[in-house]
Amino acid sequence: MSHERANIRRMAGYTWGEQPDDARTIKLNTNENPYPPAPGVQTALRGIDVAVLRTYPQPTADRLRDRLAALHGIDRGQLIVTHGGDEALRLAMTTFVDPGAAFGMADPSYSLYPVLAEIQDARIVRIPLDDAWQLPADCAAQLNAAHVRLACIVNPHAPSGVLLDRGTIARLAEGFHGVLLVDEAYVDFVDPARGHDLVPLVHRFDNLLLLRTFSKGYSLAGLRLGYLIGAAPLIEPLVTKTRDSYNIDAISQLLGEAAVVERAYAEETWRRVREDRARLRAGLEQLGFVAPDSETNFLLPRVPAGSLLCAAELYAALKSRGILVRHFPVPPLADALRITVGTTEQNQRLLDTLQLLQSG
Amino acid sequence: MSHERANIRRMAGYTWGEQPDDARTIKLNTNENPYPPAPGVQTALRGIDVAVLRTYPQPTADRLRDRLAALHGIDRGQLIVTHGGDEALRLAMTTFVDPGAAFGMADPSYSLYPVLAEIQDARIVRIPLDDAWQLPADCAAQLNAAHVRLACIVNPHAPSGVLLDRGTIARLAEGFHGVLLVDEAYVDFVDPARGHDLVPLVHRFDNLLLLRTFSKGYSLAGLRLGYLIGAAPLIEPLVTKTRDSYNIDAISQLLGEAAVVERAYAEETWRRVREDRARLRAGLEQLGFVAPDSETNFLLPRVPAGSLLCAAELYAALKSRGILVRHFPVPPLADALRITVGTTEQNQRLLDTLQLLQSG
Repeated sequence: MSHERANIRRMAGYTWGEQPDDARTIKLNTNENPYPPAPGVQTALRGIDVAVLRTYPQPTADRLRDRLAALHGIDRGQLIVTHGGDEALRLAMTTFVDPGAAFGMADPSYSLYPVLAEIQDARIVRIPLDDAWQLPADCAAQLNAAHVRLACIVNPHAPSGVLLDRGTIARLAEGFHGVLLVDEAYVDFVDPARGHDLVPLVHRFDNLLLLRTFSKGYSLAGLRLGYLIGAAPLIEPLVTKTRDSYNIDAISQLLGEAAVVERAYAEETWRRVREDRARLRAGLEQLGFVAPDSETNFLLPRVPAGSLLCAAELYAALKSRGILVRHFPVPPLADALRITVGTTEQNQRLLDTLQLLQSG
Repeated sequence: MSHERANIRRMAGYTWGEQPDDARTIKLNTNENPYPPAPGVQTALRGIDVAVLRTYPQPTADRLRDRLAALHGIDRGQLIVTHGGDEALRLAMTTFVDPGAAFGMADPSYSLYPVLAEIQDARIVRIPLDDAWQLPADCAAQLNAAHVRLACIVNPHAPSGVLLDRGTIARLAEGFHGVLLVDEAYVDFVDPARGHDLVPLVHRFDNLLLLRTFSKGYSLAGLRLGYLIGAAPLIEPLVTKTRDSYNIDAISQLLGEAAVVERAYAEETWRRVREDRARLRAGLEQLGFVAPDSETNFLLPRVPAGSLLCAAELYAALKSRGILVRHFPVPPLADALRITVGTTEQNQRLLDTLQLLQSG
């Protein structure tokens, strides 16, 4: 006899990107920062006396929370620290979407969103993006017509890298009746010259949540640390009700603080990624692979028409040569590769290998 | 406008035990192990190069999982590592209890259970314990009559410390049609002379889950590490579907392994706790405070009739003297204190202070 709920039995679960044990693999498949965490994170780790682990951690990670709130110029009550971005997404689903109610998402998008909706037994409403990876002008109206309670928009977009500007997000938040969660997992890599900052919008809209993560920007994917910013009435039930009682372990609280203190180090990694992103994009273009203008740490080049190898074959050929990228075998992504921006040397290895493969 | 689901709006959330910043407080309120983690945990921590945090952790904590499976003589597929016991409880609720369906629990019991049921919008069925903290003989029949899908039994029981034996648990698992989760948070402190081990039961019953935690036994409450043991078909959906994609961070995986490798150190702390438990219980009895026979690291002494101060007053008086214990102001606990077994010195301080308070 099966004890699972029917919706759980039906669903498939999330598919992870490959995490090879082999340190020689050039890993350009899961959008990690190519540079290690800040030196201060190592210092903080070395300074930890494990005797502190004997007792429960501070339940709401308040020191880290206050530091992050100060960074963004908001109050403690407008921020919750989460066990990676994944927990933030799950908490939003748990708190705002009744089973059977509607959850909205752009399509294509982060493949975890529909998994979380299926766990919650929510109805999934997909809003197709156009050829330029933009939302339709009547997106809010479509979401409202479908009675969507929570919509997740990853911005800059994954897997295209395209950034929606503040005006577009503001119009969506204004027109949409449900909770709009803007997943800013990659926002640290946006060119500062664009002056992109959505945080001021949380003072204007009581239905807006912004998701940040330490995984990419701070090179701490292994630590599982993220946070949500939003109006206090949106954040409050996540902190006091739906979150696991001690969701952030004591070590993560300390290392998170150290990472934020040394934010200048992280910013320098973002600058280098942006430089290498431009170089990689130009190199790919020379080989006929055209990618959208990305504000993230990855590119989505389309394999040129008439290419010797199709995208799936290129993925496999690169893998056999020790270079991992991501291929999504679904329209409209089937003819593209998603390539994380690595170090200058890694990117060059990728370009050289692609050139070799393309020349047969 | 409130965006919360109605059940979330209605509920109150979990109340944490106090976690004072002051290191001089004698903390006998949240059932932490009075001894620090094993020296090998510190060594493992010092050996971590934070560069490993740049990439995502192994998604299913397989090295730790295999080590724990070997410890218990089971297969990898019969075990899931969780972010504290709390995640294990939440995952069981998410996976096995439909919103509106019934969740069962002994009453009184761990106050997190009803909170998790409220988040899931489940109906709570409470099975009252008798005066000796035993389940009624027809417990399975009561649960079945109420169509309970998941029942949580903490064993040894909290807050009484009383242990149900294997036969009792086996009869319950056999008679109950839903999933029986036995929360063994405190099982490490059971006297080994009792030969208590429920793990063999998971081979007999396809509806039995056993919850373990590193928080108490391994002195790692600050790390958030637990695990569930059960038949593979029960564990599988938790691993592949309802768990957050990367639920265990890289550091916790490494430190968890180090703690298990040095299990003999932990076992010695359990032995000391058992000795001090007996001494504390005898000391309390001399003062007229009678506690049930506890197989945990805490005691539940009842304040003697005719005492100068009632339980609530004793709690407050102890707190003002720098000793934190727990008081639950609900029947049948209102006239008792729940006291964690501390070090020999801490327990003596508690006894001396109680004597002082009782003598007016």
